[in-house]
Amino acid sequence: MQIAIGLFPGFTALDAIGPYQVLSNLPGAEIVVCAEQTGLVADDNVLQLEISHTFGDVPTPDVLLVPGGLITRKVARDGGPIIDWIRSAHETTTHTTSVCTGALLLGAAGLLEGRAATTHWLSYDHLRAYGATPTEQRVVTDGKVITAAGVSAGIDLALALVAELAGREVAQAIQLGIEYDPQPPFDAGSPTKAPPEIKALVRDLMAAAEEAVLQS
Amino acid sequence: MQIAIGLFPGFTALDAIGPYQVLSNLPGAEIVVCAEQTGLVADDNVLQLEISHTFGDVPTPDVLLVPGGLITRKVARDGGPIIDWIRSAHETTTHTTSVCTGALLLGAAGLLEGRAATTHWLSYDHLRAYGATPTEQRVVTDGKVITAAGVSAGIDLALALVAELAGREVAQAIQLGIEYDPQPPFDAGSPTKAPPEIKALVRDLMAAAEEAVLQS
Repeated sequence: MQIAIGLFPGFTALDAIGPYQVLSNLPGAEIVVCAEQTGLVADDNVLQLEISHTFGDVPTPDVLLVPGGLITRKVARDGGPIIDWIRSAHETTTHTTSVCTGALLLGAAGLLEGRAATTHWLSYDHLRAYGATPTEQRVVTDGKVITAAGVSAGIDLALALVAELAGREVAQAIQLGIEYDPQPPFDAGSPTKAPPEIKALVRDLMAAAEEAVLQS
Repeated sequence: MQIAIGLFPGFTALDAIGPYQVLSNLPGAEIVVCAEQTGLVADDNVLQLEISHTFGDVPTPDVLLVPGGLITRKVARDGGPIIDWIRSAHETTTHTTSVCTGALLLGAAGLLEGRAATTHWLSYDHLRAYGATPTEQRVVTDGKVITAAGVSAGIDLALALVAELAGREVAQAIQLGIEYDPQPPFDAGSPTKAPPEIKALVRDLMAAAEEAVLQS
């Protein structure tokens, strides 16, 4: 089973690495991290990953996963190789998946028309523009398309995916292996739980950060 | 404020990237990912990170964080540049931290003698060998040394650290930004919660995997 994680400059690291850590423990899975070109791909901060496979090297993965990032609205709007790859690979995947605003890339590839899907809580409107029905759940499955909420939700998506691919015992074993017994020190991880002033602050800061990325 | 994440070949990716994602959103923080040498450093699977700073380039970070990996027993036993760096940098840090079996590296640097600390649940005995008192908590703070349990626990550690460094509002804002409202599909993430047969399975598999790494 081949699992392809497709990256682009400006991706958010945890969106990709959360699922990567879960899926790389799946027995029999070959994980391929790919991008438009081989060489270095930078995330939205100081991380740089060395990429050894292009999208063209991985045309028919069984599972496809794309992370999000502040730049995804631009990538989705402009189209290009990653959107073409998602559209083409989706024809033969068993599961096509996204984390956070990676859902906008699935949308731009035409995969979300008429589907329930989720994304980062600040991006529901952009998801709607692709014909999707934004759904406030941590992980949303509609047919073979599985989307996760913001950033850290990719871990939950990947565990659910492993359960579907290999059974609940394997998923539980991986969960225990990565000691995923989360205990956040605060209960502020969703827009319905965070204090209103924190929500307003994050909304303003992320909108400004996204605007800066989209203008650059 | 300078936050240094020190890597070594064979590290576990999520150990480092979970905290990285949280800490890179801390206003005013400079994150530096460093290793013994510049160039590529591979994790324990197919990931390769490009490193631009050596340990020598980051002698006095304010915060030091080291991830774990199956190879840490060997790294801790053999000593070498990363252990020397931890020992030296610790003299001037405000916080010296580890995720998973990264705690063994702190132990090898002599920092855990007489301290309460935690690590991956399979490695308590190795921690004890360094004079630490293994403590079954998600995040353990003893003076300026903060240790986290296995792999995914680094996210919780980093949020607690941000709260200490910058206040609970900033920590909550980052938590909401990465939508960290975890909803694991199973409740098997700790040895006390997982079914006994899953625990036995993981114990056997990880012991075999670690043995293979230590022999290689």
